[in-house]
Amino acid sequence: MTTRPDPVRDADPEALALARSLLAGATYAALAVTDPADGLPGISRIAFGLGPEGMPMTLISSLSTHHGALRADPACALMVGEPGEKGDPLTHPRLMVKARAVFVAQDAPERAALRDHWLKAHPKAKLYVDFGDFGFVRFAPVSILLNGGFGKAFRIDPSAL
Amino acid sequence: MTTRPDPVRDADPEALALARSLLAGATYAALAVTDPADGLPGISRIAFGLGPEGMPMTLISSLSTHHGALRADPACALMVGEPGEKGDPLTHPRLMVKARAVFVAQDAPERAALRDHWLKAHPKAKLYVDFGDFGFVRFAPVSILLNGGFGKAFRIDPSAL
Repeated sequence: MTTRPDPVRDADPEALALARSLLAGATYAALAVTDPADGLPGISRIAFGLGPEGMPMTLISSLSTHHGALRADPACALMVGEPGEKGDPLTHPRLMVKARAVFVAQDAPERAALRDHWLKAHPKAKLYVDFGDFGFVRFAPVSILLNGGFGKAFRIDPSAL
Repeated sequence: MTTRPDPVRDADPEALALARSLLAGATYAALAVTDPADGLPGISRIAFGLGPEGMPMTLISSLSTHHGALRADPACALMVGEPGEKGDPLTHPRLMVKARAVFVAQDAPERAALRDHWLKAHPKAKLYVDFGDFGFVRFAPVSILLNGGFGKAFRIDPSAL
């Protein structure tokens, strides 16, 4: 057995730049929630993007299981940064964001601007963005961990992004 | 607003075949846990494979945050089925498995067979499989949901796989 250093360090400028590029490049994410039916962890794939002010957000249907979970308990975690088709997927960088979900009401004044912004990065969403069950949800980051591969984990202060 | 049917159906043979192929083809997964430090959802990427008997499993380091979380509370959820680089990622099928983690002790008689089996599908893991902090964890499925794209969600009985 070899001794290895504390695997999590504070982010340096290179780590911050990588974190920003992972957030800016992601069009989908994995979302961890607490299932209100049984109190156990649940997981889903969601659409992902950054709002006009740079805050992570999604567009989800109220028919989805994760929508009900976030309504019952807005504490959640997101993972972005998907491996390509080559190489060891565990060495591909990914960002894990603990967050609180903040629902945007269908009649909120800001919805029109969010809709226009979202459709620029997710043009296929125009097929369903106006369905009555689809709404925007923002994620207010609580803590962020960047894993850049084995032995390259960094804590990131959400305000630094 | 249009009325749409209950989005979750019981699995048909085609859905079962898709679920089996997603499990058999995955080399990594997203893992949702409950963080013992704060009781909130946490998420990570883990290596993923099927054991000799077909049960989902992983190889993880005891230095990882998810290892500590699973030790404190083995209830978790896995998602497998990664989008390719083309098309709408939300239409790509994925399997969401609620499970309980079962740790395989380093001195368990079965470890040698699991190690050989794992390395066939994850040859790069030979670089670290024998580090003292790496161990195998099996996932006993509790419930399974297959999402094959919008409007194509199926409940799957774990015993059917």
